[in-house]
Amino acid sequence: MRDFALLTDYYQLTMMNGYLKHGMHDNIVVFDYFFRKNPCGSSYTIIAGIEQVIDYIENLRFADDDINYLRSLGFDEEFLEALKDFKFTGTIYAVPEGSIMFPNEPVIRVKARCFEAQLIETAILNMVNFQSLIATKASRICAAAEGDNVFEFGLRRAQGPDAGIYGARAAVIGGCSSTSNVLTGKMFDIPVVGTQSHSWVQSFDTELEAFRAYAEIYPDNCLLLVDTYDTLGSGVPNAIKVFNELREKGYEPKGIRIDSGDIAYFSKEARRMLDEAGFENTTIVASSDLDEETIHSLKIQKAAINGWGVGTNLITSKGCPALGGVYKLVAVEKDGKLIPKIKISENPEKITNPGYKKVFRIYDLEHNKAQADLIMLDDETIDTSQPLTIFHPIYTWKKKTFHEYRIREMLIPMYIDGKLVYPRKTVQEIKQYANEELETLWPEYKRFDRPQLFKVDLSEKLWNLRNDMLNSYKQNGSPY
Amino acid sequence: MRDFALLTDYYQLTMMNGYLKHGMHDNIVVFDYFFRKNPCGSSYTIIAGIEQVIDYIENLRFADDDINYLRSLGFDEEFLEALKDFKFTGTIYAVPEGSIMFPNEPVIRVKARCFEAQLIETAILNMVNFQSLIATKASRICAAAEGDNVFEFGLRRAQGPDAGIYGARAAVIGGCSSTSNVLTGKMFDIPVVGTQSHSWVQSFDTELEAFRAYAEIYPDNCLLLVDTYDTLGSGVPNAIKVFNELREKGYEPKGIRIDSGDIAYFSKEARRMLDEAGFENTTIVASSDLDEETIHSLKIQKAAINGWGVGTNLITSKGCPALGGVYKLVAVEKDGKLIPKIKISENPEKITNPGYKKVFRIYDLEHNKAQADLIMLDDETIDTSQPLTIFHPIYTWKKKTFHEYRIREMLIPMYIDGKLVYPRKTVQEIKQYANEELETLWPEYKRFDRPQLFKVDLSEKLWNLRNDMLNSYKQNGSPY
Repeated sequence: MRDFALLTDYYQLTMMNGYLKHGMHDNIVVFDYFFRKNPCGSSYTIIAGIEQVIDYIENLRFADDDINYLRSLGFDEEFLEALKDFKFTGTIYAVPEGSIMFPNEPVIRVKARCFEAQLIETAILNMVNFQSLIATKASRICAAAEGDNVFEFGLRRAQGPDAGIYGARAAVIGGCSSTSNVLTGKMFDIPVVGTQSHSWVQSFDTELEAFRAYAEIYPDNCLLLVDTYDTLGSGVPNAIKVFNELREKGYEPKGIRIDSGDIAYFSKEARRMLDEAGFENTTIVASSDLDEETIHSLKIQKAAINGWGVGTNLITSKGCPALGGVYKLVAVEKDGKLIPKIKISENPEKITNPGYKKVFRIYDLEHNKAQADLIMLDDETIDTSQPLTIFHPIYTWKKKTFHEYRIREMLIPMYIDGKLVYPRKTVQEIKQYANEELETLWPEYKRFDRPQLFKVDLSEKLWNLRNDMLNSYKQNGSPY
Repeated sequence: MRDFALLTDYYQLTMMNGYLKHGMHDNIVVFDYFFRKNPCGSSYTIIAGIEQVIDYIENLRFADDDINYLRSLGFDEEFLEALKDFKFTGTIYAVPEGSIMFPNEPVIRVKARCFEAQLIETAILNMVNFQSLIATKASRICAAAEGDNVFEFGLRRAQGPDAGIYGARAAVIGGCSSTSNVLTGKMFDIPVVGTQSHSWVQSFDTELEAFRAYAEIYPDNCLLLVDTYDTLGSGVPNAIKVFNELREKGYEPKGIRIDSGDIAYFSKEARRMLDEAGFENTTIVASSDLDEETIHSLKIQKAAINGWGVGTNLITSKGCPALGGVYKLVAVEKDGKLIPKIKISENPEKITNPGYKKVFRIYDLEHNKAQADLIMLDDETIDTSQPLTIFHPIYTWKKKTFHEYRIREMLIPMYIDGKLVYPRKTVQEIKQYANEELETLWPEYKRFDRPQLFKVDLSEKLWNLRNDMLNSYKQNGSPY
């Protein structure tokens, strides 16, 4: 396991030292991780990276050389002693990895000594922001591919090794069938795929020799890259020659891959040529700078592609390369009571929801589809034997009443007083769960372009608390 | 050191196994790493990540659990035995890290057994693509900041831990003065910075108490975040109160940070208030979703900012999150001779430059500015006592003759027959070198918007070779 004790912003350490010096380091505080906007034009976000947060917290110790480095920065021995003993002792609730979540809802809720809660902010943000981004991007790309296999091919363009490794993991959670990244395959037991590159074809005197040489070694997994010289002029005809030879030996070829040129035209022509040669069951994989828009457009053009290798635009989430998740202080314990805290901003979207909160998802009983989320204070309950009326947090006259419904609490315990209680899952289990989550959304929320926005409302008690704090701030110059 | 033996695409392994089975694995091949387009609208790219490539190659061994995993994928014992003995024995030339390079030039040139050259493709691309991208983005952001300090603050939005760690490293190479990322600071001896966040301010009953508490612990490094509640209404006035108290105790305050709102207006007002209170020497740091465009615009608006904390848009290179560097086969050894190889494409920009090549940079003697780059075959020389005429590789009538000039060979040895010979450097040395490289470019190439394109020409011999191979391909259906 890597030593990530220093994978944090320097100000976390200066603040921790400050809290220690003021005797505030044991104060219990509550932070919420949430995001304000879904990425990539999506109406939802698939939460991923939770397991990596657990790995991080489980291994969070300051090694001697970490301590020595911090000493060299000028921190005093009192602080360094406190770090030597550091371990996480707090309580964290989080949504199960693979959950579909929406803006402004607590996704992870950390209640801990401020000394601990402050340190872990940066790593939590780093891990969950990135993997949730890629899982969501992958989900959109897979939706565009309409059930075809999507292969994650991005390692060479990923933003460093971890972006390749964990990005591929998140891509599979979001719907990809496999990755080209062998290390990810090993670490997370994910299927790996790949056949040959242009350099294989170039390493032989002719394309035909290169194809034959490949088919000889991999007769039962023969997928040939046909665009090294001339896709329709030489690539596909040579592939068909080799496919005929394979069939004579009793093997069925897998198909071809096209990596450049006009994919719509090339794939349709290649399909016709393959079909005429009797290879109707072969697959045609495309892999040329693809993203959800291009795949969607190729589908509309009836490109004859049934496998999609997606690299750069998936692994970097091109067009939206960051999920702007934040980690905000929402309560501070005083005399055994949690006092809500709020962050004011000139920008109304940036004002936080104060207090120790939970999230309920409301499902209709007839279709088992998600109808809305309701954020409440932790001591509130819903009586599901009664109708439930919710209202829009800004346009408060917009109301909705549920009669036949069930509710589900989204946050589950991850750590209780420092003890890990979260049921750890394999990537395939998380992928399966994310898929079930998507099934609970009506198609309108999953629409590719300008999807319907999912309702996320506040309970009346929470709404009143927030409004009172804002009004009190405006009257007194302080929200307290 | 991490085990990155499997940080590769699966097809590298299927091809390696294929070469082994065909007895081709010892064939010597040459691959060039190059990129086709500068990132982020820049006219140049700062190459970074070379030291990480060296770490990778130095530690490239297959551990038992790597071998076991590959066995589980179906690879046979002959191949696994070859991997058990794997170490890199080839020759690599590369530009010194921090070099300014241009499209289509070899940046790294690998000559090795194809078994080895193929394996390392993916990791080289991953490491050099990302760090070169971020170094270049940082260079643009620093140019926009016109000499002010730029602080890298992106870890929480980086694409995973490595993107934060190595992105911060690359950002410093590109010109940033420091980072908030403590782990990067430790690993690469880079200055780390940071003071307090909104949660510090919220943790106290009032903003004034929070500021006083911070000033008490850090009297000689007191930079206060003033936008938690009301930047000009409370934040700056409270900061001034605390600054006066500090001065009474004999300390000079550092300044303030503004993280939201109208930075142009707030900074000018804050400057006026600070100056009127006698704190003319304090700094004002901005850190709110900044990039080179915003900083440029704030400079034009005469915002009173003299330190820039840049996060998301730098660490993800928003707008251009990948450098599309590629690694292409350019020659294959046959009977002791290197036979040039070319990749043809429908798309003329994607046709490669064949052969074992080197790059000369031409400088004028009067100003020591770079004038053009010339790509030549390895056996060619330039007689600098004679005038040198170069020509545009597409518009061949466009010529330029140099009379008073010097030349510099850009590629230097990194590995000779598996032995590391590259002079390793610290990040500060690399940063210094990158800065000297930028000094050799006329301002027209560094212009923020639509910069002049730097000339990269081919020698006549190389141009003829390429042209002959393309013509031969068009006549014979094969480039050979």
